[in-house]
Amino acid sequence: MNMQEATSIMKADSYKMAALSEDTRNNILAHVKDALIAHKDEIFAANAKDMAAAEENGIAASVKKRLKFDEHKLDDVTNGIDELIKLPDPVGQIQLKRELDEGLVLQRVSCPIGVIGIIFEARPDALVQISSLCIKSGNCAVLKGGKETANTNKALFDVIYSTAVANGAPEGCMLQASQHNEIDELLSCNKSVDLLIPRGSNAFVQYIMNNTKIPVMGHADGICHTYIDKDADLEKAIPIIIDAKTQYTAACNATETLLIHKDVAEEMLPAIAKALMEHGVKLRGTADAARIINQAECNINQHEESTTANTTDSNSAADNEKANTADSNSTADRQSSCEIMGDDDFNTEYLDMILSVKIVSDIQEAISHINHFGSHHTDCIVTENADTAALFMQLVDSAGVYQNCSTRFADGFRYGFGAEVGISTSKIHARGPVGLEGLVTYKYKLYGHGQIVDDYATGKKHFHFKDL
Amino acid sequence: MNMQEATSIMKADSYKMAALSEDTRNNILAHVKDALIAHKDEIFAANAKDMAAAEENGIAASVKKRLKFDEHKLDDVTNGIDELIKLPDPVGQIQLKRELDEGLVLQRVSCPIGVIGIIFEARPDALVQISSLCIKSGNCAVLKGGKETANTNKALFDVIYSTAVANGAPEGCMLQASQHNEIDELLSCNKSVDLLIPRGSNAFVQYIMNNTKIPVMGHADGICHTYIDKDADLEKAIPIIIDAKTQYTAACNATETLLIHKDVAEEMLPAIAKALMEHGVKLRGTADAARIINQAECNINQHEESTTANTTDSNSAADNEKANTADSNSTADRQSSCEIMGDDDFNTEYLDMILSVKIVSDIQEAISHINHFGSHHTDCIVTENADTAALFMQLVDSAGVYQNCSTRFADGFRYGFGAEVGISTSKIHARGPVGLEGLVTYKYKLYGHGQIVDDYATGKKHFHFKDL
Repeated sequence: MNMQEATSIMKADSYKMAALSEDTRNNILAHVKDALIAHKDEIFAANAKDMAAAEENGIAASVKKRLKFDEHKLDDVTNGIDELIKLPDPVGQIQLKRELDEGLVLQRVSCPIGVIGIIFEARPDALVQISSLCIKSGNCAVLKGGKETANTNKALFDVIYSTAVANGAPEGCMLQASQHNEIDELLSCNKSVDLLIPRGSNAFVQYIMNNTKIPVMGHADGICHTYIDKDADLEKAIPIIIDAKTQYTAACNATETLLIHKDVAEEMLPAIAKALMEHGVKLRGTADAARIINQAECNINQHEESTTANTTDSNSAADNEKANTADSNSTADRQSSCEIMGDDDFNTEYLDMILSVKIVSDIQEAISHINHFGSHHTDCIVTENADTAALFMQLVDSAGVYQNCSTRFADGFRYGFGAEVGISTSKIHARGPVGLEGLVTYKYKLYGHGQIVDDYATGKKHFHFKDL
Repeated sequence: MNMQEATSIMKADSYKMAALSEDTRNNILAHVKDALIAHKDEIFAANAKDMAAAEENGIAASVKKRLKFDEHKLDDVTNGIDELIKLPDPVGQIQLKRELDEGLVLQRVSCPIGVIGIIFEARPDALVQISSLCIKSGNCAVLKGGKETANTNKALFDVIYSTAVANGAPEGCMLQASQHNEIDELLSCNKSVDLLIPRGSNAFVQYIMNNTKIPVMGHADGICHTYIDKDADLEKAIPIIIDAKTQYTAACNATETLLIHKDVAEEMLPAIAKALMEHGVKLRGTADAARIINQAECNINQHEESTTANTTDSNSAADNEKANTADSNSTADRQSSCEIMGDDDFNTEYLDMILSVKIVSDIQEAISHINHFGSHHTDCIVTENADTAALFMQLVDSAGVYQNCSTRFADGFRYGFGAEVGISTSKIHARGPVGLEGLVTYKYKLYGHGQIVDDYATGKKHFHFKDL
């Protein structure tokens, strides 16, 4: 069966899936949790194959950490399912109830979207989270995970799918795509698939967006900014920018550009740059930013050199300190200091231990820079001034606008959504981390007793619009 | 200035437009109302030119009625503006307020979408309604109306635009496109335009959807159904189907297909068909439906012929009655009765005094037919059985699902939204008639005091998720 036929069957079954009661959907989730635990040995064995293949292919340790599915990850996903069961039902919520006229009542009721195609990175826990979110929200799901976890994905999918069907879900509730060419087939299924959620590299997401008529929810770029205002508290600014840049550099919500107000650049930038470089971050700045950073670095190095000349012990102590920082290249980084960059570099999503730095003359320039170069994902202002923060949060056109906290908070779990299917930088439908609410739409139900429009068009009757 | 440059300026101004206070936006609307009245002579004069051109071009009377902009239409649109001013502000609504942890507060706040391109039919009142909705919701609007009302549109736009700017809106708040080639230019402005709302023919909307990367909201087809259930009340069914088919045949929410349960087809279909044909509706049915209708017609004609033979007076009375029906062809229609149609005809949006008729064996077949052949716009069940209605309204996958009322109610004004920018058959973002709520998105605001993600990732701190 090809993807067109398979999704066409899913489409027909999506109405049955949408009609499952809250109890049935929560009961399926509870059984999925139990089944995952009951079949954990098979799942771990499948994961061992994927891990062995990763070893053979010389895949990086940081990536292997994501491929791994062990007792700890199993705990995480089963706890996640428990949390999801507890969340209120996103389906069947009455969002509006209005009497248009006597005996003519309009309701707007939330309902599942239908058939959703999700293409995600090689991370087995993502498969469990995404399928759980789709079950809870009454949606049918086509799942295509990264090929590096093909064995684990198959084992997880088999357990989840068979459990769902055994507990009342229609046969077309879920479909696993395992071949890469099935992605292109999926893109052409606009008659049956209501929404696509691609996760992955910028180029991959762009490819999806440019090659389908199906609505796409997600984000290509994640160029996030942290702006240090003239009224910033340096004690907050340093840990915030360190966390926003280094806590997980490969994440879309990691900060890529540091903006700083000219009035505090001389005072704060050296300390911020020093802290960043000690954490292994390479800096790329505009000419004026680089001058301040490199001048300060130069002063520090001169001071250290003179100190070294006096006491060899303190030198080894400094070495020990360096060994504790996140990146062992920090010595080299500190020596190379801040490179000078061009304006085009502000379009670059590094996803690496590199940060762009720019001095801005005022809050307006900061806002304009972010709206122009940013990807409307998540941007933060560090300031103690509530008025400046309000202006920033009003005018910056991003899914997330933050005051005095790390951009890394942009995440469905951290927002209390249980989990997320993705983060949307689109302004249509759902924006920011997308949990259950982004997986439902609504329908209008109108209950009458024979009312016809002509009576209202001719003035025989009149609407009175009473919200109930 | 080309469209790319113009919309790029609008994009920059959209942040200012979004930041206007509710008072400023309502004040602009109040001034727009006054200015329209103050400049009515110029507007009526411009409309006279359009009407003269329509006369020259031999445009149909029904279309000319839509082109006309007179005191009556002016009253309608100024009353509409008054209603819009009274509606609650769609912008700045706090949709979620949650303490993630002590001193870390998340808010989801509604905000305008940004720059919206709206392409609409030749109807001057639409220009006023659409621009008013965009002003109320803080959006910038590119407006392209039908060429048949070019003079009226220009006069209306000039009044609205100059009034908006004079009362605090940024210069880029509105743009009028008047040339047809500007539509294609607009389709390529995906960097600046956030949403397109095309209104018009199926082919035109399809063209827009297939030729832009900008999200499109609207509908191509409007294939709406009315299903007469076995528990239908015939007294309600007849006026509902007459209204749904004939009250305004060119509307997208007019019914195109009548479905009827087999158990009541012999009893109800003849009366329903007779009433429809008396209103000038031509019927096209499946073989079994045509048989019932034509058999009944045949009986009536035989009866009428025999009556005529007895009393010539009653014949002329019947003629007079016919002259009162909506369509003067009704005699011819009654003679031609019900044509036999193929299944493919159920895909046809007639937008005319033609109705497809099908007998279904049960509610499930009705639902399947609607989900397969319909356009997910608006579909109605006529039944006195609440359980059957609930099943229909649950399983029919349309923006509007109705019980015992005309499909013609699917309209923003009739739903109490003040007006509408369009009706969406998409399931993403907004569905059904789209008023102010469909013209806003939201952003997440997160207020912290230096919080970093690493403290939560390492277990030093924990989220507690308290909704405030």
